[in-house]
Amino acid sequence: MDYTAAFEAAVDRVRSEGRYRVFANLKRHAGSFPRATWIRDDGSETDVTVWCSNDYLGQGQNPVVLDAMHKAIDEVGSGSGGTRNISGTTFFHNLLEAELADLHQKEASLVFTSGYVANEAALSTLYKILPGLIVFSDALNHASMIEGIRNGRGERHIYRHNDLAHLEELLRAAPANAPKLIAFESVYSMDGDIADICATVALAKKYNALTYIDEVHAVGMYGERGAGVAERDGIMSEIDIIEGTLGKAFGMMGGYIAAKAVVIDAIRLWASGFIFTTSLPPAIMAGAAASVRYLKSHNEKRIAHQERAKTLMERFKAVGIPVFPSESHIVPVLVGSAVHCKMISDILLNDFGIYVQPINYPTVPKGTERLRFTPSPDHDDKMMDHLVEAMDKLWTHCNVARMPAVA
Amino acid sequence: MDYTAAFEAAVDRVRSEGRYRVFANLKRHAGSFPRATWIRDDGSETDVTVWCSNDYLGQGQNPVVLDAMHKAIDEVGSGSGGTRNISGTTFFHNLLEAELADLHQKEASLVFTSGYVANEAALSTLYKILPGLIVFSDALNHASMIEGIRNGRGERHIYRHNDLAHLEELLRAAPANAPKLIAFESVYSMDGDIADICATVALAKKYNALTYIDEVHAVGMYGERGAGVAERDGIMSEIDIIEGTLGKAFGMMGGYIAAKAVVIDAIRLWASGFIFTTSLPPAIMAGAAASVRYLKSHNEKRIAHQERAKTLMERFKAVGIPVFPSESHIVPVLVGSAVHCKMISDILLNDFGIYVQPINYPTVPKGTERLRFTPSPDHDDKMMDHLVEAMDKLWTHCNVARMPAVA
Ligand SMILES: Cc1ncc(COP(=O)(O)O)c(C=O)c1O
Ligand SMILES: Cc1ncc(COP(=O)(O)O)c(C=O)c1O
Repeated sequence: MDYTAAFEAAVDRVRSEGRYRVFANLKRHAGSFPRATWIRDDGSETDVTVWCSNDYLGQGQNPVVLDAMHKAIDEVGSGSGGTRNISGTTFFHNLLEAELADLHQKEASLVFTSGYVANEAALSTLYKILPGLIVFSDALNHASMIEGIRNGRGERHIYRHNDLAHLEELLRAAPANAPKLIAFESVYSMDGDIADICATVALAKKYNALTYIDEVHAVGMYGERGAGVAERDGIMSEIDIIEGTLGKAFGMMGGYIAAKAVVIDAIRLWASGFIFTTSLPPAIMAGAAASVRYLKSHNEKRIAHQERAKTLMERFKAVGIPVFPSESHIVPVLVGSAVHCKMISDILLNDFGIYVQPINYPTVPKGTERLRFTPSPDHDDKMMDHLVEAMDKLWTHCNVARMPAVA
Repeated sequence: MDYTAAFEAAVDRVRSEGRYRVFANLKRHAGSFPRATWIRDDGSETDVTVWCSNDYLGQGQNPVVLDAMHKAIDEVGSGSGGTRNISGTTFFHNLLEAELADLHQKEASLVFTSGYVANEAALSTLYKILPGLIVFSDALNHASMIEGIRNGRGERHIYRHNDLAHLEELLRAAPANAPKLIAFESVYSMDGDIADICATVALAKKYNALTYIDEVHAVGMYGERGAGVAERDGIMSEIDIIEGTLGKAFGMMGGYIAAKAVVIDAIRLWASGFIFTTSLPPAIMAGAAASVRYLKSHNEKRIAHQERAKTLMERFKAVGIPVFPSESHIVPVLVGSAVHCKMISDILLNDFGIYVQPINYPTVPKGTERLRFTPSPDHDDKMMDHLVEAMDKLWTHCNVARMPAVA
């Protein structure tokens, strides 16, 4: 057994498909997001505009958030020093969990080290808590949900993306008295489309299934107080378990679920991924709580965000750049090949100071490789002019397919 | 299907075994660790001494660490804003990974959101990279390693804890040309015993197996530069993959692996738990790098730490408190029942201002419930006097078994 050769082969398999990942080395500038310094391998630096951050609202530079972090560090230090059970539950964890329960109008919430861990831990643990559980999972659910469902090692059925007729077919075919859970997302982050939450909940009620929604790309950004699309659609109280992240619109890191107190308590006591890990640092919890609280009462941020996304979408369409029919703040542009996608993003970065990461398999299906733009309230008109002009040039230069202009 | 009843039943199962977990609400005091404020449910507060933190060296209050965090927040804000691949690799991530590779004298390292995720992601992914892999796993390995190995869904064999004769038996029985990996820890954190790393590596070489060591409870604390027990034992260069945490002795959060560049690259490209999650905040990376760097050149911290642990162990023994035969900085005391354990820790907290969390199943086997003390360089003689006196009183009061005095 030649181990080195085996590891090399694993790397080569990725490389030969043109999807070897090179991470851009960045230093964002607090106070002037979305500007950042890009540092090349040789150490030379260029200032760029970041167009693919998931810090969707720029909360990562909100002084309210940064002050809360500084204050917590001064008061209680850096790490928490333990797992939640063994000295790692702090005042700040409890405050944040109360803040999140209030955000979603649920009895309780539980914070995990990330949104990924929240999904993996909660979903795999639900199989333990509800023996015989059958999960019905949207085909485009995020990797973390898929892992959680697979690791639960129970029965699961995949329904075609956002296809509720297919979901109902599968629900109808399952034993009436078996515990059931429908797992789906609100905003699908790579296409920007949005699930019909009300209709999904109606099906859940008809077949006595629980609902589990991932609002990772919606919390902070939709609804009157930023609780997500379920809030916007007036259906939040009917969802059993809401999952979210602190790492995107809230500008921090960590993940959580919100639900009835007994649901939270059971998962708290049974989830390996929650129990056996150091809890998040108090400063992160303090910053997250400040961010959640801030966005509850700053709807104007959400309005500005939607306007920016819509404007960019229209401007791309006007010059025939093939944007996906997104219903959200996400502006994906189809390229269709990994090699092409990487080439375009390299030119944008090197020649135009525009940073947008190519999105390849396994994040999206092969043949749908794309550039995914995430305009924030801080991306101004001048930045957009520059971007649209650069893309227009490149589309001609690289001979990529256009859409009919719809200006 | 009555879902609420099912969730209640899951909680009741835990409660009926006397191991329902109530998290202590704490606020540590930066600058005067291990002192902290304990906040009761009714909001009233008491100052306590924390005796069960895994911030083993008090790095969570080291001004060098806190300054690095403050500086990074001022410079680049709070969260990273993305996954490592999509705008979430910063200058600070790269610096820390270089610092960790240097610490372990490996070609490269890779940071994950936690030590738990590092173990889960690395081990499950190794099954993908090395088809047909057989993992040999110590029976007392941490939950995160167990999850990683189980989620890899390949062949695995469990050897009796630290029993190398049993390990060899299993290795000998496996096909000679199959890829193999021995997964073990250096310091076992609940008993405080230490693996024979040199003998394990010798077996690995004899049977052409890779070695994967979890040094989570050793990094920062053992070896001339704090790289762990493998460094102390002069065997570090012979270990294939070293896994560690930033959340314990380094006083922060996050986890990592260090290995040859090609091993790191393969795991970086294939591990779902690494790819599909927001990267750690720059301030956490900056603080961790400062902490790792600091401990490389402050061996006196490690010497003081060992002295404190040895002293506490001797003092407990002198009054017949049944400490485990720990070879490390961890001082576990046997109680042997979940209910007793909880009672003693409640009295210590309420009557003596001493906080030590009871350790119950599933963290340790039933019947071995314990109190686990982790004296740091900042636990002074007066604090120890107070603790030993309180324990001595309680052992009489609660009629718990003693050891013969060995003063
Ligand atoms: C839909 C979805 N769910 C969950 C996650 C994981 O959240 P986190 O980044 O907090 O781990 C992500 C992205 O990272 C996501 O896109
Ligand atoms: C042996 C061991 N490995 C891994 C972990 C997980 O590390 P982290 O706390 O960074 O998730 C822990 C404890 O939390 C542990 O005790």
